[in-house]
Amino acid sequence: MKKRFALPLIIAGILSAASAVAADDPYAKLKQNFQQLPAIPPIPANNTQTPEKVELGKMLYFDARLSQDGTIACATCHNPALGFTDRIPRAIGHGAQRGPRNSPTTLNAAFLSSQFWDGRAPDLETQALGPIQAGIEHGTTLDKAVATLKSFPEYQKRFADVFGGKDPVTAENLAKAIAAFERTLITPNSPFDRYLAGDEQAVTTQQKRGMKAFVEKGCAGCHSGPSFTNGGFFKIQVPGSTDEGRYTVTKKEEDKHAFRVQTLRNVALTYPYFNNGSVDKLDEAVKIMGREMLKTELTKQEVADLVAFLHSLTGEMPKFNYPVLP
Amino acid sequence: MKKRFALPLIIAGILSAASAVAADDPYAKLKQNFQQLPAIPPIPANNTQTPEKVELGKMLYFDARLSQDGTIACATCHNPALGFTDRIPRAIGHGAQRGPRNSPTTLNAAFLSSQFWDGRAPDLETQALGPIQAGIEHGTTLDKAVATLKSFPEYQKRFADVFGGKDPVTAENLAKAIAAFERTLITPNSPFDRYLAGDEQAVTTQQKRGMKAFVEKGCAGCHSGPSFTNGGFFKIQVPGSTDEGRYTVTKKEEDKHAFRVQTLRNVALTYPYFNNGSVDKLDEAVKIMGREMLKTELTKQEVADLVAFLHSLTGEMPKFNYPVLP
Repeated sequence: MKKRFALPLIIAGILSAASAVAADDPYAKLKQNFQQLPAIPPIPANNTQTPEKVELGKMLYFDARLSQDGTIACATCHNPALGFTDRIPRAIGHGAQRGPRNSPTTLNAAFLSSQFWDGRAPDLETQALGPIQAGIEHGTTLDKAVATLKSFPEYQKRFADVFGGKDPVTAENLAKAIAAFERTLITPNSPFDRYLAGDEQAVTTQQKRGMKAFVEKGCAGCHSGPSFTNGGFFKIQVPGSTDEGRYTVTKKEEDKHAFRVQTLRNVALTYPYFNNGSVDKLDEAVKIMGREMLKTELTKQEVADLVAFLHSLTGEMPKFNYPVLP
Repeated sequence: MKKRFALPLIIAGILSAASAVAADDPYAKLKQNFQQLPAIPPIPANNTQTPEKVELGKMLYFDARLSQDGTIACATCHNPALGFTDRIPRAIGHGAQRGPRNSPTTLNAAFLSSQFWDGRAPDLETQALGPIQAGIEHGTTLDKAVATLKSFPEYQKRFADVFGGKDPVTAENLAKAIAAFERTLITPNSPFDRYLAGDEQAVTTQQKRGMKAFVEKGCAGCHSGPSFTNGGFFKIQVPGSTDEGRYTVTKKEEDKHAFRVQTLRNVALTYPYFNNGSVDKLDEAVKIMGREMLKTELTKQEVADLVAFLHSLTGEMPKFNYPVLP
């Protein structure tokens, strides 16, 4: 039996079978709508990424002394244990005050074309200084934050080593270091990325059906590109929200209640959803998106398939040791 | 030159030189007052330490959902980035309320004979449930905390795998898992431990002088054993404190304003000091201890030597990856 065919014939047979499978695969063409998450996000020309800067940025990301009462760090609301978000509807900051919006994840934020729900910061460097100064977040000033850092000889040395210059402990360099750390918070190797890379077993049939629905229903129109957002701003009305969104930045009537398209990378980990965190469950969020953005009442099966697909976008969490702060 | 002495003579010479050094070493005998930190702390017979339990305990240690508003975890006040404490005078918990006492470190707490400043918990298991129920800390109830855990299928599965039984998600098992994780928070390999193990270069001459002062001035009387505390309770009056300490537990007059002798392991990282966190600097804390407990005004040199010695008690921080919580 084993010697019935000559080897070249067997190989030819295998190859033709493989081609046949590809041709029959109803999902093969759909895949072309998607892109893998790159291992490295865009890096600005004026903020080179060095291991020492990343390490310093990690320390600062975890340093609660950059707040008025010493209890709020970046990691408080963008908590590594909770998908780099806080899993509560709206952020709770200085003095237990509750902010107006849900904390977005820091994971893959480096790929976004703007930061904050309303896109008011063009990059991670600008974003980093926002919460420090926000009364309901860190509740301090940049001058105080810089003075705090200067009070630690270890920070003085690290800033000098990383940035050089006569007075290296500045708000600008603080922002650069935090941004450099955040550019390492990338989540590669999700089941869907492995599927795009050729591994047919990496996702389930239901997840493939969800991918199909994602394209055919129109989700992929805005949730496109490697981080599943085209960076655009669109009006959306979610339960309980009166937030004027992008309008607060542009003061243009057409931006009222518009928010930037959110990344869907790791969306299974970044609940609750929407600008006010009003929706706890992913299936409910998918239904609302269908209704609000696609003017479609998705079927139960479509919702289940889409949710399964969205779960395939959970990548590997960044691994790093805790910093030991001075 | 090389062949001037026969080999046995050279060896004899080396041995006698080594003995001479040991005999001349004024610190050799002082070392006998100290013990290295064991790699493994005492483990209670009814809470066996398994990797799965430790992993579950780590998740629970970081899980802020075990609090009323979802923002306070064990790791909030016992923060791994800040020496497993919070580096503020008195803990800030639920609703930004400030507690009455300084957060003690979780590092090496497994070696202590009682927990909390007033020793009201006999072990880590009992300790773990205190802050969850304290109105000014996690601000919730054990029933609510258990209900929260039960709402996550992943926690249900992990508790079942670790503890078995019909209803494994209980407050008792929650406490056991957290305690098991905390028993891994040991800091071996401090310079002083390496010195005790024979490495003469591991500490400086000033640190050896500090060790000498530590014994001769009397600090070692109470700060004894591998974790530098004999577990006793002693009256102490630190700046600004009206705290009745151990009295609140025993209601015995002699326990008024008494607190358990604190561990000095990693004391350079666990500032600010004392029950109300009123002292920020280690040299000031040493001076106060001299005055309050030893009735001695330590000289500037003694204080400097003691502080140098205390820095030699900083061990290696535990290394672990962040949990990814459900």
